[in-house]
Amino acid sequence: MAEFSIIGKSVPNVDALQKATGQAMYTNDVSLPRMLYAKILRSPHPHARIISIDASKAERLAGVKVVVTGKDAPDERIYILRDRYILARDVVRFIGEPVAAVAADTIETAEEALDLIEVDYEALPAIFDPEQAMDPNPPVVIHPDFPYVSQFEPGKAQTYLSPFRFPDDPPNFFSHAKVRKGDIERGFQESDLIVEERYNRPRVQHCQPEPNAAVVRPEPDGGLTVWETSQSIYVDREELCRLFKLSPSKVRVIGPYQGGGFGSRSSGQVIATYIAALLALKAGRAVKLVFTRDELFVDGVTEIPMVIYMKDGVKRDGTLVAREVRIILNSGAYSGINVIGSYLAGYAMAYTYRVPNFKYDGYTVATNEPVSGPFRGFAANPPIWAVECHMDLIAERLGIDPVEIRRKNVLKEGEENAIGETTYNIQIEDSMNKVLEWIQWDKEPQVEEGPWRKGKGIALSNKQSDGMHGSAVIVKVYYDGTIEVRHSAADLGQGCNTCFAQIAAEEFVTSVDKVKIVFADTAITPYDFGSIANRVTFHTGNAVRLACQDAKRQILERAAVMLMVSPVALNIRDGIIYKEGTTVAALKISDLFKMPDKFLPKDGEILGRGAFTCNVIPQDRETGQSERANAFYSWGACAAEVAVNVETGEVKVLRVGQSFDMGQPINPKICEGNTEGGIGMGIGSALYEEMSMENGVVLNPNLVDYKVPSIMEIPVADIKAMFPTTVPHREGPFGAKGFAEGGLVPTPPAIANAVYNAVGVRIKELPITRERVLAALEALKEEKEKGKTGSSL
Amino acid sequence: MAEFSIIGKSVPNVDALQKATGQAMYTNDVSLPRMLYAKILRSPHPHARIISIDASKAERLAGVKVVVTGKDAPDERIYILRDRYILARDVVRFIGEPVAAVAADTIETAEEALDLIEVDYEALPAIFDPEQAMDPNPPVVIHPDFPYVSQFEPGKAQTYLSPFRFPDDPPNFFSHAKVRKGDIERGFQESDLIVEERYNRPRVQHCQPEPNAAVVRPEPDGGLTVWETSQSIYVDREELCRLFKLSPSKVRVIGPYQGGGFGSRSSGQVIATYIAALLALKAGRAVKLVFTRDELFVDGVTEIPMVIYMKDGVKRDGTLVAREVRIILNSGAYSGINVIGSYLAGYAMAYTYRVPNFKYDGYTVATNEPVSGPFRGFAANPPIWAVECHMDLIAERLGIDPVEIRRKNVLKEGEENAIGETTYNIQIEDSMNKVLEWIQWDKEPQVEEGPWRKGKGIALSNKQSDGMHGSAVIVKVYYDGTIEVRHSAADLGQGCNTCFAQIAAEEFVTSVDKVKIVFADTAITPYDFGSIANRVTFHTGNAVRLACQDAKRQILERAAVMLMVSPVALNIRDGIIYKEGTTVAALKISDLFKMPDKFLPKDGEILGRGAFTCNVIPQDRETGQSERANAFYSWGACAAEVAVNVETGEVKVLRVGQSFDMGQPINPKICEGNTEGGIGMGIGSALYEEMSMENGVVLNPNLVDYKVPSIMEIPVADIKAMFPTTVPHREGPFGAKGFAEGGLVPTPPAIANAVYNAVGVRIKELPITRERVLAALEALKEEKEKGKTGSSL
Repeated sequence: MAEFSIIGKSVPNVDALQKATGQAMYTNDVSLPRMLYAKILRSPHPHARIISIDASKAERLAGVKVVVTGKDAPDERIYILRDRYILARDVVRFIGEPVAAVAADTIETAEEALDLIEVDYEALPAIFDPEQAMDPNPPVVIHPDFPYVSQFEPGKAQTYLSPFRFPDDPPNFFSHAKVRKGDIERGFQESDLIVEERYNRPRVQHCQPEPNAAVVRPEPDGGLTVWETSQSIYVDREELCRLFKLSPSKVRVIGPYQGGGFGSRSSGQVIATYIAALLALKAGRAVKLVFTRDELFVDGVTEIPMVIYMKDGVKRDGTLVAREVRIILNSGAYSGINVIGSYLAGYAMAYTYRVPNFKYDGYTVATNEPVSGPFRGFAANPPIWAVECHMDLIAERLGIDPVEIRRKNVLKEGEENAIGETTYNIQIEDSMNKVLEWIQWDKEPQVEEGPWRKGKGIALSNKQSDGMHGSAVIVKVYYDGTIEVRHSAADLGQGCNTCFAQIAAEEFVTSVDKVKIVFADTAITPYDFGSIANRVTFHTGNAVRLACQDAKRQILERAAVMLMVSPVALNIRDGIIYKEGTTVAALKISDLFKMPDKFLPKDGEILGRGAFTCNVIPQDRETGQSERANAFYSWGACAAEVAVNVETGEVKVLRVGQSFDMGQPINPKICEGNTEGGIGMGIGSALYEEMSMENGVVLNPNLVDYKVPSIMEIPVADIKAMFPTTVPHREGPFGAKGFAEGGLVPTPPAIANAVYNAVGVRIKELPITRERVLAALEALKEEKEKGKTGSSL
Repeated sequence: MAEFSIIGKSVPNVDALQKATGQAMYTNDVSLPRMLYAKILRSPHPHARIISIDASKAERLAGVKVVVTGKDAPDERIYILRDRYILARDVVRFIGEPVAAVAADTIETAEEALDLIEVDYEALPAIFDPEQAMDPNPPVVIHPDFPYVSQFEPGKAQTYLSPFRFPDDPPNFFSHAKVRKGDIERGFQESDLIVEERYNRPRVQHCQPEPNAAVVRPEPDGGLTVWETSQSIYVDREELCRLFKLSPSKVRVIGPYQGGGFGSRSSGQVIATYIAALLALKAGRAVKLVFTRDELFVDGVTEIPMVIYMKDGVKRDGTLVAREVRIILNSGAYSGINVIGSYLAGYAMAYTYRVPNFKYDGYTVATNEPVSGPFRGFAANPPIWAVECHMDLIAERLGIDPVEIRRKNVLKEGEENAIGETTYNIQIEDSMNKVLEWIQWDKEPQVEEGPWRKGKGIALSNKQSDGMHGSAVIVKVYYDGTIEVRHSAADLGQGCNTCFAQIAAEEFVTSVDKVKIVFADTAITPYDFGSIANRVTFHTGNAVRLACQDAKRQILERAAVMLMVSPVALNIRDGIIYKEGTTVAALKISDLFKMPDKFLPKDGEILGRGAFTCNVIPQDRETGQSERANAFYSWGACAAEVAVNVETGEVKVLRVGQSFDMGQPINPKICEGNTEGGIGMGIGSALYEEMSMENGVVLNPNLVDYKVPSIMEIPVADIKAMFPTTVPHREGPFGAKGFAEGGLVPTPPAIANAVYNAVGVRIKELPITRERVLAALEALKEEKEKGKTGSSL
């Protein structure tokens, strides 16, 4: 194994001091001269025709600078399918869809102006049930003119997503993904046991601490400078260029520090930015727009609710023979980037276990609900929860230990998964062993304490990482030896800046305090697809390393000329250039710079460049097969112990241990923190979080009525992040790969399995609320009385 | 001659619309959240010891955030000789020297606080006359501990300026420059006529429209972001790093648009910036400091007043045989960058005419007056004025036409000047012919109109350009073909952005509107020594061209791989790549970028780099000789016609024509504008401008009492800018060289010579005021009455 000087060390987060002292700048901290404040008028109808809008009273209100409606907005739609106007035209499709926006001298004036805008709607019938929406002749067609665009260039850029639907798919389908492997019918024929279930995972919200925000300043050249909460500033820049017909050279997008993101502001879904930009261009003044918490719930993206139909066929010994899955993804009124979700949900179903005969259909479907989208573990959480519950169900029916059935079926290093990819760096059994040992799997808990019953559960998981997109990095080396890393990944609190500082320090054999990080400013930092899909440690990290190597090459080539040796005979350590094999300093970096200017006669400065992208292969449209559909996988395991109150139905999480493979961890402490955060969110998803929807209305759009677990519900002292034995990833920077999304994924099924283990009830709809537990206990009691329960074949 | 598509065309200034509509951002437009406003307390004494400062009352004033004095300031001195603290310690040396500074919530509070600071001074004897200051045993030694610093590294960086003084030089000398050529004594012995004179050029101020200003924000990492009026942001960054012991990676300096500069804010002389930085660091808040017009007069740098002793020896036919010159440069209380001035004044004396025997001594001397420094035509204006007056004097004594004596002595292409450099691109005779023809030199004006007498005058001039320092440029090419030029020269209104846009457009064979200019931000734009010494068209312009070529190389290499041809078989025009000899588009630039990211798999983006610097050779310390001491010269000629009122002494400028060689002009209209501006300033220097000094007090520190010529005094319709026949400079970008400073230089002597031509009086002290003219006319009358006048040998 490689010896590292900084990689693998838990150096303090390079942003910690700034954040702890309140000095770190967030989007809402941006304040510009003569800046206006914006508010959005939103539709009260889930589906309606806009007959007329009269904004004249609002426009006359003192302090109002500009009011915009759909007519003022670009005649260009957003999202992958180009199906949404940034302000509704003619039709609104969900409660909360932006209809008009105001920019005024104060927030209060802007709010007052909203009340003065008169909109005349004609209500249309709406549809909320995604399974009803799937009907070939549904009662409501939400996008009758779909698809809207021809410019999408099928077969070119997004080959692997296109044409998204099959010709005879129902009208409310945004996309339909398929995987076919082996012979599914023969698989079931050869099975000794077939287990079928329906799993339902309702809508949850990211609840990131910092709401979506944007400040947009119009520039004298007609361009825009944008500060925004975003996980992908370059994608947003592209969208702004397309919407407002601007050259990319005229749109500067800056991503300050962010309080979370969790997928909600990735990949061009930044409605706040687009509306602020529209207002700023119309007003000719800077505009600030910050979503309220309410707005985040209706128009800040939610997780994709899914209905999952699983049918597994197994041999008597637990060997998985066939799996047929249908997943209905509720995209809400617009497509977001959920056509991708229909593919990702399939990966999650196919990548943990060996499945010789596999059939998968994923349908992304329109309803008149808020738009859903990526959420930490994009489209993997509900499927993994379903699979891991299902594995336990099967094990119980066969009388096998949940661990044993997993050992038997889990993919081994070098095996082909159901998509056709060869696995490596899987480490999943090692992770499982780690969490089993930690939770003392073989030791029976003291199961009874008054009304409390204890139980343990386990779950495995995987999370793929995107391999379609690229990352570029620039490294400037100053004459004093400072290594400035310029990258465009987003700092969401996940620690990417520290990761990159460690990679740069390792490459230059120096300390982290000699590295300066400059991030997320399209005027300074080069292209990056952004902080999504676990990709930045791997992609941006590789680009950091390549850019450092390019900078080193420039340094050593210059030094070689001065020292009259070959560059290969030189190396650099702590800003000093040495001749190979000697310990006497030959040159300092500053010696390379011309006096008195301290600049380089050729090129002016040391500026290294690096770029990284994977060579993924589009999946076959009919079979979903690809030799490499993804950049890499993060495999992990989770074990949980819970106590269930049989009188109240309350579930208490006692302990959760998780182990995730991340190749060579760059900073173990940050990896642990990330895992722990994921477990916390997982507890929320498992037990508490659910957006209560009624006819398209979010009934609990706030953090009082929508329960996010706090320190009272998360047993922080009994949460444990672990790593399997380190196996460096063959392509990752110093062997590292990303994993931060993964931490959330296996927690809900591990808890669900522990609940079953404790009290024998299987809740097939999340969250596992007291009411659901009590109802299930009641049903179980009734069944037992009727003698219907049992685990025989 | 080369055929150009854009070079040589008067395209509109690329900044014109922004500036005309008030959208262009200047330093004073920068407004930051919680920004404080600063004011400076200045010394009322020309020379005094500071006994004590009590700032406690000021500190207690509500709204005052911080008060700083010399004790709080860095223990580091500024200027080339490191002789000035940014806030005085122990001793003040001129009236107006900063003693304390305040940052408060409002300007008014800051001003009020100044009155509450109690400073106890002990007055010291002062010295104002530079010739008295030159005494080996002067009554006052202003810097008794001089030189202060050993870290100046003589013999290394600033070889050509060091050690500045000779061992036995008097104590008030900052520097002493020498040139020695031939045998000066034999030269005078061989002369038929020796003419000696003393010329005195008093103090003038730049009077740029925008006062010096700075906004400084302290950053969480301990660094600084600075917006400032500056001609050399990188030099200032270095000074900030040195003063406040910061890594260059932590100091970001931004130079917004500027309303003039004219040398006053070049090369690290930005006192406003340093004091604002000190306050910002102490306050932990952003600070804005804007000088008042009064403050500009006392501490905003002035031109260097000079006393010039000229002694020329000539043959009867006018041939110059020997020239001995002594120039005393009044630096004021500190050295500024005036050690350079002592060398530059010598160049000006030596570079227009052939002087076989030459002796020059330039002394930069300390007095208790405001600090002087570079002023459009740095250190060349007084010497050229003296030389050109002197040439007329000699011509008159010899009975030769002023044009004839100039033709006889002017340097010819390929001749060696008195410093030892070989001249080329001189074009000075062609310029002289142009202005002579325009002014109708041979046509006698109607000389008498009531009390008005008309006369014509001519003057030649040169202005060297710095060759010590470098410029670097980055060119980014966007996927839509936009060419972004990133440079760190300062836009002072001189049009450099347009010049660079034309160079980039020419190099890419496209139009100027495909070029975006990004300027003067050390976080984005690479090293440049700045907008001084006519250098940016030449240095930065060359770097633009080289960076474009580097970017083109990257484009064509990528295209070559895709097209499977050699890169040399490709060229680019208007964003389209063609195979050599074909007119069918082979690729668009956008075709090179990977979809869907629009980034480049290798390197991430097209980023061309260019850097340019001249190989100048330090002058010999004793003889001033060098094969190449400067980057290039701008030679020019000026002809003026004036009317003098013999009753009032008033001089009216009737016509001024000027011709300057600029190699290949990039944008003739901008060149003309620059020349015209120079003529306007020249009229001011010749006739109106003078800082009235009395015991170190500036008596007229405002634009009411200090007369700057307006449209009433400048005959705008009768000002003419001309060019000699274009001879491209062999090293300049597309053959261009700089000249903008030059326009001012020959105007005062041309006017002075015209005044003499009109009324026969020679004013040897500028400006040529009514009083001086009347007194001279009176003296002339007396001399004539005594029969003393005449022009015989």
